[in-house]
Amino acid sequence: MAHLLSTSCTLKIAPGCKPNSRLNQDSLAFSASFSFQTSKLPFRSFRLPVERFRTNSTLQETTIPSSGFRASSGEGLKAEKVMVIGGDGYCGWATALHLSKKGYEVAIVDSLVRRLFDQQLGIDSLTPISSIHSRVRRWKALTGKSIELYIGDICDFEFLSETFKSFEPDAVVHFGEQRSAPYSMIDRSRAVFTQNNNVIGTLNVLFAIKEYRDHCHLVKLGTMGEYGTPNIDIEEGYITITHNGRTDTLPYPKQGSSFYHLSKVHDSNNIAFTCKAWGIRATDLNQGVVYGVKTPETDMHEELCNRLDYDGVFGTALNRFCVQAAVGHPLTVYGKGGQTRGYLDIRDTVQCVELAIANPANRGEFRVFNQFTEQFSVNELAALVTKAGKNLGIEVQTTSVPNPRVEAEEHYYNAKHTKLIELGLQPHLLSDSLLDSLLNFAVEYKDRVDMKQIMPSVSWKGIGAKPKTVAA
Amino acid sequence: MAHLLSTSCTLKIAPGCKPNSRLNQDSLAFSASFSFQTSKLPFRSFRLPVERFRTNSTLQETTIPSSGFRASSGEGLKAEKVMVIGGDGYCGWATALHLSKKGYEVAIVDSLVRRLFDQQLGIDSLTPISSIHSRVRRWKALTGKSIELYIGDICDFEFLSETFKSFEPDAVVHFGEQRSAPYSMIDRSRAVFTQNNNVIGTLNVLFAIKEYRDHCHLVKLGTMGEYGTPNIDIEEGYITITHNGRTDTLPYPKQGSSFYHLSKVHDSNNIAFTCKAWGIRATDLNQGVVYGVKTPETDMHEELCNRLDYDGVFGTALNRFCVQAAVGHPLTVYGKGGQTRGYLDIRDTVQCVELAIANPANRGEFRVFNQFTEQFSVNELAALVTKAGKNLGIEVQTTSVPNPRVEAEEHYYNAKHTKLIELGLQPHLLSDSLLDSLLNFAVEYKDRVDMKQIMPSVSWKGIGAKPKTVAA
Repeated sequence: MAHLLSTSCTLKIAPGCKPNSRLNQDSLAFSASFSFQTSKLPFRSFRLPVERFRTNSTLQETTIPSSGFRASSGEGLKAEKVMVIGGDGYCGWATALHLSKKGYEVAIVDSLVRRLFDQQLGIDSLTPISSIHSRVRRWKALTGKSIELYIGDICDFEFLSETFKSFEPDAVVHFGEQRSAPYSMIDRSRAVFTQNNNVIGTLNVLFAIKEYRDHCHLVKLGTMGEYGTPNIDIEEGYITITHNGRTDTLPYPKQGSSFYHLSKVHDSNNIAFTCKAWGIRATDLNQGVVYGVKTPETDMHEELCNRLDYDGVFGTALNRFCVQAAVGHPLTVYGKGGQTRGYLDIRDTVQCVELAIANPANRGEFRVFNQFTEQFSVNELAALVTKAGKNLGIEVQTTSVPNPRVEAEEHYYNAKHTKLIELGLQPHLLSDSLLDSLLNFAVEYKDRVDMKQIMPSVSWKGIGAKPKTVAA
Repeated sequence: MAHLLSTSCTLKIAPGCKPNSRLNQDSLAFSASFSFQTSKLPFRSFRLPVERFRTNSTLQETTIPSSGFRASSGEGLKAEKVMVIGGDGYCGWATALHLSKKGYEVAIVDSLVRRLFDQQLGIDSLTPISSIHSRVRRWKALTGKSIELYIGDICDFEFLSETFKSFEPDAVVHFGEQRSAPYSMIDRSRAVFTQNNNVIGTLNVLFAIKEYRDHCHLVKLGTMGEYGTPNIDIEEGYITITHNGRTDTLPYPKQGSSFYHLSKVHDSNNIAFTCKAWGIRATDLNQGVVYGVKTPETDMHEELCNRLDYDGVFGTALNRFCVQAAVGHPLTVYGKGGQTRGYLDIRDTVQCVELAIANPANRGEFRVFNQFTEQFSVNELAALVTKAGKNLGIEVQTTSVPNPRVEAEEHYYNAKHTKLIELGLQPHLLSDSLLDSLLNFAVEYKDRVDMKQIMPSVSWKGIGAKPKTVAA
């Protein structure tokens, strides 16, 4: 992809850089090792060596999974070291901090390409976000906990191999994909990038687990959007079908509605196969639409603040509505607004991932959880934001805009989501107080809002073969 | 992919090369136009300009689809110009000739990478095959019918765009994928190549149709292997499910059992989406295992002879067994031999594709046909070949070898295949006489058999992350 060539970089451990070199816990100082590879690879690669939690006693003192371990699952596997791929992103960053806080030894693997997308599209997070390096240093200063950082692209298998050999993860949480449906529908080049990046990156993770850490538990972020909107109940990954007098339990039929959603379907199919063929243990978290921005950890310091997207490409329904309300822009409902989806608070995202890690899948098991807590239609969300606005003295208007997507605007929707509850998830349901605080948060940052980013800019039918360049 | 970098080449029409320039139909002579692009692209690109059938009267005289056109399908679309992607391969070559014979104007698009695979793996077709250039010239000499030739990689969208703009197809038959399950399981690099090549190539075809020929009918070769071996009847693409009191017709659940099969599942999902989102018209032909080598057209001259693969990577069950029997090698049954699949004669492959083209899908329709005529278990095939051997005085042994694949060796299997019959398919069923002639054909070429190619060489569980190099 011409527009992304510049993001290809690779980690190389410099000979003098030992992964376990000890640092002073109380100091912000850290030693960074840069290794420049100019002969074959176009970009520098580097790694921040940081301290590891090694003693079991330390771990046991600090590891308090909210659900407790289930002795019956994961055949006794206890994850201590968790690699968070895509750990600089919206969900990934909050998850990395949460796991670190809970006592897991955490490494973030990220190419930082999400930040490049912002630059290229001329968009930005509502919240100012610090560099990943500042974030990790601040976390260390505040908590004494180190997060290792591997900067590179998991589509580069040489890079990924080095991260596996260096960090030796027990669990991999894989957020490291292009995650926007509209982005994948901008033009052919982005469609191809999305499928290539997501599918090949995940294939590489599977091969790395097989080659280097075959007991490692893969926790892969999927999406509820893989199911589409069937006219029957959505189950968690599998459905038992009786047909012509015979019965089998089969993968739930998928109907992705963008090249992004389809890339996730492809991933799920690839992972399911490797569980069967190689004995990989995997959990597929089909996540709903995430809202909110604060978790207890990201709220500790402004340098830990999470991103909040409100633009037409990366912004998601409820977050976008809150920002629109804050700046007095009518809430943009696509079409009839009957589109119903599963939603969850970002505090539940991090909780769900932790539950999956603490209760790993068995060898060869491809486990699917639907990760959301409540269902809403777009119209219902608009009504809730309007009501919350009233509480704060903000008059909120709603407008219907032509739907840029190809999707049913009125449909049946009933998706099961009991498995994470059974593991101990304690949901943060959408409440008046949460909406008030989200809205207040948006108001706090409203001077940073770029009004040009608010309207949908990508059309499912209008996508062209030619690269779409973005004007100022 | 390092092992395939050398296959990347691109077509450029030289300014002086008019697509419609007339040639003498009775002459073997043809004008070739070579355009060397050394500045940006590493390889030469070329195109053979040949005559087109233009007058409707000519077309009507020579076009006699065996099924006739269905006025009710395809909203009146009548395909005259058919692009056969992968037209140098086993099924593609036979199909291209068949369609040309039937009066369609045919262009072959092929990167010829299948021939490179043979070179790289040190394997070869049982039958000696001529170059694509010789093949096309011979066809022209024998029949007066021209087949246009575009040599390049459909993953290169610039190349594909030029072929679309130059040839202006009404239908695209897409065989242009890496089509071997074992090949996709050799090593990580081949797994990644297979999924990237197949998925991105197909995405490019979809974008090319949308951009340049939006009425064009895509006839895509899928595989029965996409369904796996569910414990219920396999339907043609869709299944009606009643669940918790509600009913919907959904895509049939897929369970691909190699990175190759999974690439086809990914394709199917991508194509289904573009039918819905863009109104693409597509037919997905989920083909069974093809056997045989001769079609009336390939049998016309030795330079038109089709390839026959018997090796452990590209060889398929029945063809392999016939070659094994011919050289006195025991038939290699994988494991218990209860693996049951759909099979069809290559003469039915070409007939099915023609039927799909002659009866196009409607706009926005994603139509799925299961393309096979009979079901056999591996043990049943071995017994049939043993019996046919006896008729010819050949003593055939059978041996069970450890199954290199991960698959059920005893299972229920009942797959529907009525839709192509309804369109007029007249099957060539597997008979004693056909087996005799296939076996005789193998005996005729048995001096060309390389015994080292016969045993399975690729293990589903043994696939590694490191590139597998092939020794002499």
